[in-house]
Amino acid sequence: MNDGPQIRPSLDGFRWEGVELLAYKEEGSAPFKAITRQVLFQRPELQCELRYFEMQPGGHSTLERHEHVHAVMIFRGRGTCLVGEEVREVAAPDLVFIPPMTWHQFRATKDEPVGFLCMVNAERDKPQLPTDAQLQELKKKKVIADFLDGRVAPGEMTNTNGPKS
Amino acid sequence: MNDGPQIRPSLDGFRWEGVELLAYKEEGSAPFKAITRQVLFQRPELQCELRYFEMQPGGHSTLERHEHVHAVMIFRGRGTCLVGEEVREVAAPDLVFIPPMTWHQFRATKDEPVGFLCMVNAERDKPQLPTDAQLQELKKKKVIADFLDGRVAPGEMTNTNGPKS
Repeated sequence: MNDGPQIRPSLDGFRWEGVELLAYKEEGSAPFKAITRQVLFQRPELQCELRYFEMQPGGHSTLERHEHVHAVMIFRGRGTCLVGEEVREVAAPDLVFIPPMTWHQFRATKDEPVGFLCMVNAERDKPQLPTDAQLQELKKKKVIADFLDGRVAPGEMTNTNGPKS
Repeated sequence: MNDGPQIRPSLDGFRWEGVELLAYKEEGSAPFKAITRQVLFQRPELQCELRYFEMQPGGHSTLERHEHVHAVMIFRGRGTCLVGEEVREVAAPDLVFIPPMTWHQFRATKDEPVGFLCMVNAERDKPQLPTDAQLQELKKKKVIADFLDGRVAPGEMTNTNGPKS
């Protein structure tokens, strides 16, 4: 048998035995709010990592883009996300794919936490933050401005995709 | 925006919009029972794939080993698994890592389905099945023989690890 535990039992509260609860990112490196990170699988034999992110009510991830992609499964609760120019309500266990160089952000509602699994290549580029000009360009679409300013709640979206049925 | 849907909403019954329900493996290629496969993420930009496997009551995956590893999260229900010489009860959302060249099998109980997510390198070697001699060697341990013959149910295990508390 190889070293290291092969089975990590789950614990209450979306935690796992032997998995550390980490800060989402280094403080001050980028804007985010009320979000934690747990690295579920990060092994030299695997070319991807699997992480679990959880946002408390009102929390959000960083608005960013990068060459590497994300394969996301909403794991707990419901929230909203921006993928490119699309704002959508998502709920467990919906799947979300973030293509290369696509602005994205996940947001919890005011009422409940939302958690998601994220599969990502182990070797990846550094995220880019929007410049002021890029942010203004994004916000020309009202639905995106509302989302980024935290004014969109599930069921209230006015984008053509509409809320998830 | 890139082509292809970025969001795949979840459907009832552990299905996803646009995700095909597949046979576990090619029929007759290896022993298995009452198990299905859904490929949740398989993208050229990602060096791993994420699949969802589900076994009906009494179902099981193939007993096999290979150089590539599996990163598994039990996603639905509870069942038992063999990892090397360890037989363990597992329940959602426990994590299971299958090291290289380690015999492994997942089994549902007689009472309920069990489903698991499995992250795996996109480029990987072909699974090996045990020879008769290897199978007899494995079955020298009573707990493994009981497991492989479907005689172990959660809470009834006699291995030193004991059932999950």
